[in-house]
Amino acid sequence: MTPAAPAGGRPAVILFSGGLDSATVLALALGEGWKVHALTFSYGQRHTVEVERARDMIARHPVARHAVADIDLRIFGRSALTSDEIPVPAARPAGEIAAGAPSTYVPARNTIFLSYALAWAEVIGARDLFIGVNALDYSGYPDCRPEFIAAFEALANVATRAGAEERARFTVHAPLIGMRKHEIIALGMSLGVDYGATTSCYDPDTHGRACGRCEACGLRREGFRLAGVADPTTYRP
Amino acid sequence: MTPAAPAGGRPAVILFSGGLDSATVLALALGEGWKVHALTFSYGQRHTVEVERARDMIARHPVARHAVADIDLRIFGRSALTSDEIPVPAARPAGEIAAGAPSTYVPARNTIFLSYALAWAEVIGARDLFIGVNALDYSGYPDCRPEFIAAFEALANVATRAGAEERARFTVHAPLIGMRKHEIIALGMSLGVDYGATTSCYDPDTHGRACGRCEACGLRREGFRLAGVADPTTYRP
Repeated sequence: MTPAAPAGGRPAVILFSGGLDSATVLALALGEGWKVHALTFSYGQRHTVEVERARDMIARHPVARHAVADIDLRIFGRSALTSDEIPVPAARPAGEIAAGAPSTYVPARNTIFLSYALAWAEVIGARDLFIGVNALDYSGYPDCRPEFIAAFEALANVATRAGAEERARFTVHAPLIGMRKHEIIALGMSLGVDYGATTSCYDPDTHGRACGRCEACGLRREGFRLAGVADPTTYRP
Repeated sequence: MTPAAPAGGRPAVILFSGGLDSATVLALALGEGWKVHALTFSYGQRHTVEVERARDMIARHPVARHAVADIDLRIFGRSALTSDEIPVPAARPAGEIAAGAPSTYVPARNTIFLSYALAWAEVIGARDLFIGVNALDYSGYPDCRPEFIAAFEALANVATRAGAEERARFTVHAPLIGMRKHEIIALGMSLGVDYGATTSCYDPDTHGRACGRCEACGLRREGFRLAGVADPTTYRP
């Protein structure tokens, strides 16, 4: 049974992929008393099973509403996250991660995600968006940096009726942006996040089991190790 | 037969709805020698016939590629442009248009449209986006103003690998932003735009015939009158 949404609380839109980071952000926002509107994207090659797992996780939390937006970025061409044709690369050494955007980079992905979140926020009268980006472990992604978050906030305040007419200020909360993966895990454990139900893998199988060798799996494994927490991830054989 | 795309020219992404404004922008961009990648959105209640008309128009121009992105903003709730449940309002007096965003305002629509355009631009190595917004006739829309265009440009330059790593500068061209409708029509006539093939109406019938009474029809009619050009629009009986 879905827990009832909290009666009070200001509305907020939370980008929720069902991954480790966004599950932590969800727990944080709920803990702070926000009336959570969770937004999940189904896009490109992402397995239906991942979206179903996201739905299952959301169903166990007292959110006001969960929306799943279907977008197909494959109309523009290829990327390891959106095309079935390109193999997912294995984890890279930390130095290489810092050197530039990896091949799993999806052009303008977080811009598109936040645009949808902004639309929903305006419809429900919310002024707060939450996104689980992380500038340290994913320094190669331009749209995971503080400058990106600040630029999107500035855009939100001129792009919307709320910003233009009511002088309402939008805030893009990126509470994990300066944290390392093991710090995120430690925070999430203190909030009761069930990480065994989260998916981070770039290349899960049709049962949602992680590959254990892509960059996301590598960072996640290392995070649990450094946090001193048993890794609850189900890896495929 | 589709005319061949021009051999040279830098690539650009053009938002193309099939309406009067975007048809003019398309003609301008082609005239300037850009290698045009036209992007049309199919969303909410917009009739399939409108998208088909956009496809037909594009097929008569030498564009490099035309993509149609399917997005469903109805997952977030209602607006006269995206919900079948709300009647389209009749044209308002000019003073009222200036007074605020009309009920046909779609939250964050141009932000979402430009986000997709940015993604495509990055995939094809383009640094130029074209959008047919107009700040005068549609002063009520926050995302048709110069400050919105400037904020999106700033965002594009931090949101992308191209902007972050190559210090490439994105430009959002909004050539019609300071023009009145009759000036746009005069410009388009000089470029050979076939306005009879364009659709502006918020409430066309299933044959794509304009209603003749919504705000978009009102502005368009008045534009042809002031431009001294016979209105080629097909209105329904």
